[in-house]
Amino acid sequence: MTVPARGFLLLRGRLGRVPALGRSTAPPVRAPGGPRSAFRGFRSSGVRHEAVIISGTEMAKHIQKEIKQGVESWISLGNRRPHLSIILVGDNPASHTYVRNKIRAASAVDHVDERTICNGIAPEKDVDGFHIINIGRLCLDQHSLIPATASAVWEIITRTGIQTFGKNVVVAGRSKNVGMPIAMLLHTDGEHERPGGDATVTIAHRYTPKEQLKTHTQLADVIIVAAGIPKLITSDMVKEGAAVIDVGINYVHDPVTGKTKLVGDVDFEAVKKKAGFITPVPGGVGPMTVAMLLKNTLLAAKKIIY
Amino acid sequence: MTVPARGFLLLRGRLGRVPALGRSTAPPVRAPGGPRSAFRGFRSSGVRHEAVIISGTEMAKHIQKEIKQGVESWISLGNRRPHLSIILVGDNPASHTYVRNKIRAASAVDHVDERTICNGIAPEKDVDGFHIINIGRLCLDQHSLIPATASAVWEIITRTGIQTFGKNVVVAGRSKNVGMPIAMLLHTDGEHERPGGDATVTIAHRYTPKEQLKTHTQLADVIIVAAGIPKLITSDMVKEGAAVIDVGINYVHDPVTGKTKLVGDVDFEAVKKKAGFITPVPGGVGPMTVAMLLKNTLLAAKKIIY
Repeated sequence: MTVPARGFLLLRGRLGRVPALGRSTAPPVRAPGGPRSAFRGFRSSGVRHEAVIISGTEMAKHIQKEIKQGVESWISLGNRRPHLSIILVGDNPASHTYVRNKIRAASAVDHVDERTICNGIAPEKDVDGFHIINIGRLCLDQHSLIPATASAVWEIITRTGIQTFGKNVVVAGRSKNVGMPIAMLLHTDGEHERPGGDATVTIAHRYTPKEQLKTHTQLADVIIVAAGIPKLITSDMVKEGAAVIDVGINYVHDPVTGKTKLVGDVDFEAVKKKAGFITPVPGGVGPMTVAMLLKNTLLAAKKIIY
Repeated sequence: MTVPARGFLLLRGRLGRVPALGRSTAPPVRAPGGPRSAFRGFRSSGVRHEAVIISGTEMAKHIQKEIKQGVESWISLGNRRPHLSIILVGDNPASHTYVRNKIRAASAVDHVDERTICNGIAPEKDVDGFHIINIGRLCLDQHSLIPATASAVWEIITRTGIQTFGKNVVVAGRSKNVGMPIAMLLHTDGEHERPGGDATVTIAHRYTPKEQLKTHTQLADVIIVAAGIPKLITSDMVKEGAAVIDVGINYVHDPVTGKTKLVGDVDFEAVKKKAGFITPVPGGVGPMTVAMLLKNTLLAAKKIIY
């Protein structure tokens, strides 16, 4: 898929018919105790005190299976199969990775303003959740189509059984499609129309001094990092047993293989020895984001929110 | 002003013609160094290390004078005098105080849904900034009509010259018209369309354990408290020299006088000995909120945002 600088891509697909989407039937690896208990991908072999590595890939397969069932049952009632259209604005590599993982086809056109595009989509069809009405509803704790990455983090936390009520959470990153909505989901009221995490949330960003960030992460029960900086979170910054959710997508040169490799924002090998839960990159938030986009597509098709 | 439970009030007024609004010509007490330097109400007499007490009343008079000049210059160009209409939903005493301070006239009607009312107002006339479009724009760092209390806190901070860039800020309270928009203004990017404070912001609320709140406030350079709990913030919770902005409105029984008195959320007498800046209640955020509502009215009349 080639993408021009500041171009956007128009992609189309049908839920349940796209290869690698919605076809998995493999059961998730799951700890006992029902859907809200710890959803465990696998434990690192035999080493004590290492983090539970949350497999976003496995969790996403499970959710895609749920969605597939939802689609089939929706169609069986005589409804049209849900369709997904994608418009990609700009040349952010992370966006490209995200879209490349969705559907492998593209066509390019000229640059347009990102906000105009987001608001130009009907809010009830805006499965990315970037329309101002969806952002407004999200921030008012109303049901909305929630940006897929934020939704992915939320699902990872709740399905794994990570507690947030009255806990310290650090969100490193304040982007409007990731950091901000994650902070919004986690600090808000569990009893509202769209329940929140009831956590005490600290929002950090590029102008947070590193030592100040460390002070906050050392207090945190949950650290969510979406900063785009490899190894921003090191083990000295993490409290023993904390949950670490890595939203970072960074391509770095691997001196061992000489090739480019994908890494997150967390020093994974070191932090996993101290954290209670950790998501890997790749195979953590990424596949879950794709799953949540499909979930939004089904929600939109069924007109559940609007 | 009597208000039925869950009723709403319809009040009308004209800017520049309402007694106690926009008529003050008294100059503000101001420290040297221009508009963004420390705006000092008065210093407690002679005691070393006591906080600068920020007079919201004086600052509001200054802003109302600016608005009055703005209104007169707007009218002199042949435009209509800006009008303000107020609809009050519910029976929250704080809302009543706020409205009572705006205009002293009222008429009552039946209960209606708060969100429906907020969204029923044209966003360009929604001077309270509660319409979903204004909330959405606020959260996307676009120009918007900002909820007056949040705007009041922002103006107090910037006009006093309190630094927020890369600083620790605690916002205690997550209401949609006060805590949430304050947190939004303070954590966001100073370079965006609607500039933010670039602070590291911690959002605390009713489910934040008291000891956890204390841990955060002790780290904070700026504490903004909008919790509705008298003496929630005590001097042991405040870092030497911190700025403390008290948004609380609480009516408590005064054992000395036997009467009801208005207090904020801060143990004012003790905290002022430790803080660098502090706002009193009454005479702090309250009058500034009224001033910012009038500023929004002028902005709306001049169609500057929409």
